[in-house]
Amino acid sequence: MTHLISHSRRLRSTPFTAGVEAKGVKGYTVYNHMLLPTVFENVVEDYHHLKQHVQVWDVACERQVELNGPDASALMQLLTPRDLSKMKEDQCYYVPVTDNDGKMLNDPVAIKHSDTRWWVSLADSDLLLWIKGYALGKGLDVQVFEPDVSPLAVQGPKSDDLMARVFGEEVRDIRFFRYKRLAFGETSFIIARSGYSKQGGFEIYVEGTENGMPLWDALFEAGEDLNVRPGCPNLIERIEGGMLSYGNDATMANTPLECGLGKFCKPAEGNAHIGHAAMARELAEGPARQVRAIAIGGEPVAPARAPWPLMRDGQQVGQVTSAAWSPDFEVTVSIGMVDAGHWDDGTELTVVTPEGERSALVKEKFWV
Amino acid sequence: MTHLISHSRRLRSTPFTAGVEAKGVKGYTVYNHMLLPTVFENVVEDYHHLKQHVQVWDVACERQVELNGPDASALMQLLTPRDLSKMKEDQCYYVPVTDNDGKMLNDPVAIKHSDTRWWVSLADSDLLLWIKGYALGKGLDVQVFEPDVSPLAVQGPKSDDLMARVFGEEVRDIRFFRYKRLAFGETSFIIARSGYSKQGGFEIYVEGTENGMPLWDALFEAGEDLNVRPGCPNLIERIEGGMLSYGNDATMANTPLECGLGKFCKPAEGNAHIGHAAMARELAEGPARQVRAIAIGGEPVAPARAPWPLMRDGQQVGQVTSAAWSPDFEVTVSIGMVDAGHWDDGTELTVVTPEGERSALVKEKFWV
Repeated sequence: MTHLISHSRRLRSTPFTAGVEAKGVKGYTVYNHMLLPTVFENVVEDYHHLKQHVQVWDVACERQVELNGPDASALMQLLTPRDLSKMKEDQCYYVPVTDNDGKMLNDPVAIKHSDTRWWVSLADSDLLLWIKGYALGKGLDVQVFEPDVSPLAVQGPKSDDLMARVFGEEVRDIRFFRYKRLAFGETSFIIARSGYSKQGGFEIYVEGTENGMPLWDALFEAGEDLNVRPGCPNLIERIEGGMLSYGNDATMANTPLECGLGKFCKPAEGNAHIGHAAMARELAEGPARQVRAIAIGGEPVAPARAPWPLMRDGQQVGQVTSAAWSPDFEVTVSIGMVDAGHWDDGTELTVVTPEGERSALVKEKFWV
Repeated sequence: MTHLISHSRRLRSTPFTAGVEAKGVKGYTVYNHMLLPTVFENVVEDYHHLKQHVQVWDVACERQVELNGPDASALMQLLTPRDLSKMKEDQCYYVPVTDNDGKMLNDPVAIKHSDTRWWVSLADSDLLLWIKGYALGKGLDVQVFEPDVSPLAVQGPKSDDLMARVFGEEVRDIRFFRYKRLAFGETSFIIARSGYSKQGGFEIYVEGTENGMPLWDALFEAGEDLNVRPGCPNLIERIEGGMLSYGNDATMANTPLECGLGKFCKPAEGNAHIGHAAMARELAEGPARQVRAIAIGGEPVAPARAPWPLMRDGQQVGQVTSAAWSPDFEVTVSIGMVDAGHWDDGTELTVVTPEGERSALVKEKFWV
């Protein structure tokens, strides 16, 4: 069943929307009140191209929240269970953010500019309101706002080659989840080796809306012979790679431990995190459910619009939240949340899809 | 330019989605991470029908936030400039919510169940995060969460007749922005005389996802001879009526005074509101800009996807944020924000649309 998206100012355009539409984007989703492209050729063609060449992605919807002021670093550590004390100057940190019950509110990437200035690059929730509201209630000395920064991603195996042509050879030296500030024309951007695919690449934090289209055009001009194309996070590829999507595979009903993020939840010195007590209890008892790769048998099924129940002996023991047919692995790859006692590698379950029941094999590892 | 919406769990379905899609919804927008229908026949046909008959609207995306606990009432008064002390037991209150700078974070409708229990029915932002974060920082004794409540609206001139058939004659006695709890089968719902049109009608706060489709079906069965149809907030009708849309006509960059909500901003006893100081300064100086009806001349233009600059003598003096051709008034009706000194009734401006410049007449009153 297909439906049109009704455009309005409320579904914000990005600095790159003119470029995206000139290149014939066919579908959108909405992410942080902003347009996120979903399809150019079609999901399968986009997938093959991403794995072979290089794509430019408008991920401006990864909105930034800036924390600026004397209490910025203390506030950051209150927000997340991850210990920030050893973070290097050029490092990006994936930081699950929870409430006082240890429930996930977002899973952003944080960049530390200085002890008094941070950016967090958001998944799909208005985390600005949480951070600003909490800081106000607590009486912290910090400004919290959305700066004019729009990430543009370059993803795919030829990413280093394309980026080197636009930003110089030193872009190749950026390590995974590290960043450098590199020049572009009269300005410069923070460039991190990161992104929402397993094909390698970068995220460019484009400061200043007016710099968006010049960068977009420069990347396409420089990459013609690399077969550069517009792209977007690809449903199939991200499921194969086990990249969780907040709002799809995890919600405010889940904890970081349930999402398999235990390595980011080792309590920091002083246990500052808002959700420390709740998380300590969960660490002691173990999580009630956990994310798993699920291989679904039989005929392909249209992508999930709502959770599909996972059943064992007539009892629900979990749910599948993202699923897509994988041309490379010739199986329906999926991400599910499985209850304790049923999540061992090789467990055979049944999944109830809108198109009928299918076999569902629990796998410890994703497809990469 | 038309684009498909890519469905996923993250764009949440509602308790009524099965009904909406069985009746052939053609377009959606996303509101509070949830699907909001936008078109059934087409926007013009839907508009004429709304003004003549009765429609059932899936507005489940007006998500509720529940404040529950000893500090619930104190917290509500901290959130809004509106004086809540005289609110009657069966009253719904439109309550602009601002931050400490007096900027709008949402413009929900509040229902007071008791001194320790409130619901706020949201416009499009995750206000739950603001309320919960602030309460946590402040150390207030209150739980803040999203209950399983999904509003369904019945709108149009025949709304009373349809509702009386399903809920009994006493529904007719509900006054504007008042509510009653009325029985439906084994359960009961809060029903308010309210809604996002000027054609009259009700909003039913459907508690329990499982009660959604039985109510949907009951309304359509009861209203066949009233020509009941599925509908949705109508772009043309809501602009004619001057009904602001948060995210379109007002954002976090605006204040309630700029939005013409001064009557809801008379400081409450004790000046508890978080934004009191900022708002007092603005009240003393007068707002820098204000919402106005703008009649746009010339050929119809496609609905605005981004603000259209309003110009006077070569200077920008405001912007248009929502616009649509009105068949009834035979003019492009629009909502704009106009700078002080240029907002008088009858002021002639120019608006720069993507399809060229048009004359723009500032009007003090909307088209109803």
